[in-house]
Amino acid sequence: MADQLGPAVAKPLFNRLTIIGLGLIGSSLARMAKQKGLAQTLIACDSSPAVCARVKELGFADEIIAEPERAVDQADFIILCVPVGANEALAKRIGPHIKKGAIVSDVGSVKASVIAKVAPYLPQGTHLIPAHPVAGTEFSGPDAGFATLFVNRWCIITPAPQSDANAIEQVKSLWLAAGSNVEVMSAEHHDLVLAITSHLPHLIAFNIVGTAAALEEGTKSEVIKFSAGGFRDFTRIAASDPVMWRDVFLNNKDAVLEMLGRFNADLLALESMIRKDDGEGLFQLFTRTRAIRRSIIEMGQETPKADFGRNSSSDQK
Amino acid sequence: MADQLGPAVAKPLFNRLTIIGLGLIGSSLARMAKQKGLAQTLIACDSSPAVCARVKELGFADEIIAEPERAVDQADFIILCVPVGANEALAKRIGPHIKKGAIVSDVGSVKASVIAKVAPYLPQGTHLIPAHPVAGTEFSGPDAGFATLFVNRWCIITPAPQSDANAIEQVKSLWLAAGSNVEVMSAEHHDLVLAITSHLPHLIAFNIVGTAAALEEGTKSEVIKFSAGGFRDFTRIAASDPVMWRDVFLNNKDAVLEMLGRFNADLLALESMIRKDDGEGLFQLFTRTRAIRRSIIEMGQETPKADFGRNSSSDQK
Repeated sequence: MADQLGPAVAKPLFNRLTIIGLGLIGSSLARMAKQKGLAQTLIACDSSPAVCARVKELGFADEIIAEPERAVDQADFIILCVPVGANEALAKRIGPHIKKGAIVSDVGSVKASVIAKVAPYLPQGTHLIPAHPVAGTEFSGPDAGFATLFVNRWCIITPAPQSDANAIEQVKSLWLAAGSNVEVMSAEHHDLVLAITSHLPHLIAFNIVGTAAALEEGTKSEVIKFSAGGFRDFTRIAASDPVMWRDVFLNNKDAVLEMLGRFNADLLALESMIRKDDGEGLFQLFTRTRAIRRSIIEMGQETPKADFGRNSSSDQK
Repeated sequence: MADQLGPAVAKPLFNRLTIIGLGLIGSSLARMAKQKGLAQTLIACDSSPAVCARVKELGFADEIIAEPERAVDQADFIILCVPVGANEALAKRIGPHIKKGAIVSDVGSVKASVIAKVAPYLPQGTHLIPAHPVAGTEFSGPDAGFATLFVNRWCIITPAPQSDANAIEQVKSLWLAAGSNVEVMSAEHHDLVLAITSHLPHLIAFNIVGTAAALEEGTKSEVIKFSAGGFRDFTRIAASDPVMWRDVFLNNKDAVLEMLGRFNADLLALESMIRKDDGEGLFQLFTRTRAIRRSIIEMGQETPKADFGRNSSSDQK
């Protein structure tokens, strides 16, 4: 899987690009934009003084402005990279300061709610084009970001039917420059697909790790010790940012509960197979699930390397 | 994490070492034993003629004997590396041919059942010392194995209270030579701990991937496309060997159903938090689960590298 960022663009795509929220995603985006030369001026804005200070040290922004009102006032492209639950208050603050014709986008994992909560605060003539890069790691903060995070990953753009075609193209061009593959769909469809590919897996991982955390102390330390049997894979997902994920579940409640309902029904059927010693049923299910993995590897969204490369000296042939 | 196998032993620990079943685990064990010089003669035995032919090509066994009766008759150490459900029929066949004083061990993920199903067929004077290396990948077959699979992983040995101390030491010495850390506990306790660290995670992964596989065709292909959001981590586990896992669930039914019961109760509580917009409850749970991950990394059972090293060009610092 190639994961190199191509050369800088011939001429900046944007005049003033403002990124608000310099966590894992925001700081990766800023690093990428800097490295590719996407903006004449790259402005970083974060409510945390510690993050602002660190961004200054890391040196990937041209200007660091703590107040969002000032950070957006001349920008032609603004990207909100805050937890989904923080969007509304932020939109309320910056709305009156955004210049006409500016594009406002975001990177949140839920899309219908950002439209519902941000759009009302934007002045007429600004373009809200939400986006969701399907990429990330379990780490948080400005030090966790890296410029190639989005390479070969998907970015889903969810414009409204009446959105400006040129604004959509500009958002696309940003993500193509980041090395991503771009897909356009409705916010509602996005939220349903992500409920099963991302939100439900996180919910389940948080839950199983929570179940283990609730065990008696002695057993719990054994769980940690013998985690290589499968459990540790869940702990990576369950180590993701608590604020971000709280907001995702609260903002995509209906789709998540719908997928959870299907999951629960399937789990009941699986439990019943075990109770009834239905070996043939188990074998058939496990054979079907193995095939899904192959499709993901064929689509280039995963490496077939055993155990995610944990055994680097594997001499498989 | 060091994952080198040390130098060969000064003198072989065993005269004739017989490994029955040359899949991922059996073939890794054979490669390791060969490389470390653990046996005077290493005998590989597999019911599949194709596997026997491939093992011959790979060249890590001194003798390849298809019939288990003949493969065990002079052996002083026999390791069963077949799916847990195949142990009983195999023990029935080899029992009468095992010489007095020989050690019989295995590598299965369930321990109480192997004792119940194998012990009755072993002649007086043989030592049944079950073992479980907590290691593996999602691949199967003799080509998937590698000599360093067990390095820095745990191997759990589950002797009976009356087991011969010298026989236990010999099983220990094999796994220490493989680079594993060795722990001794009762078969029943093993089955309970593994139910939460390994069997339940697999059950859940098989289930969620099954739920996705049952979606309408259009949505299903989007799930595969956007799997980087969390789902793909489950697919690795759900790509594990179907026969092995069918047998694990049928042979560790009680402990698995007990842990599944706890998981379901926790999931119901989590679902209720989402329904009730209990952001504080969600935040607290997700903070607890993040801490478990740290413990696993501190224990050396995982690398902290972001996203399992999938982003090899990550420039984090």
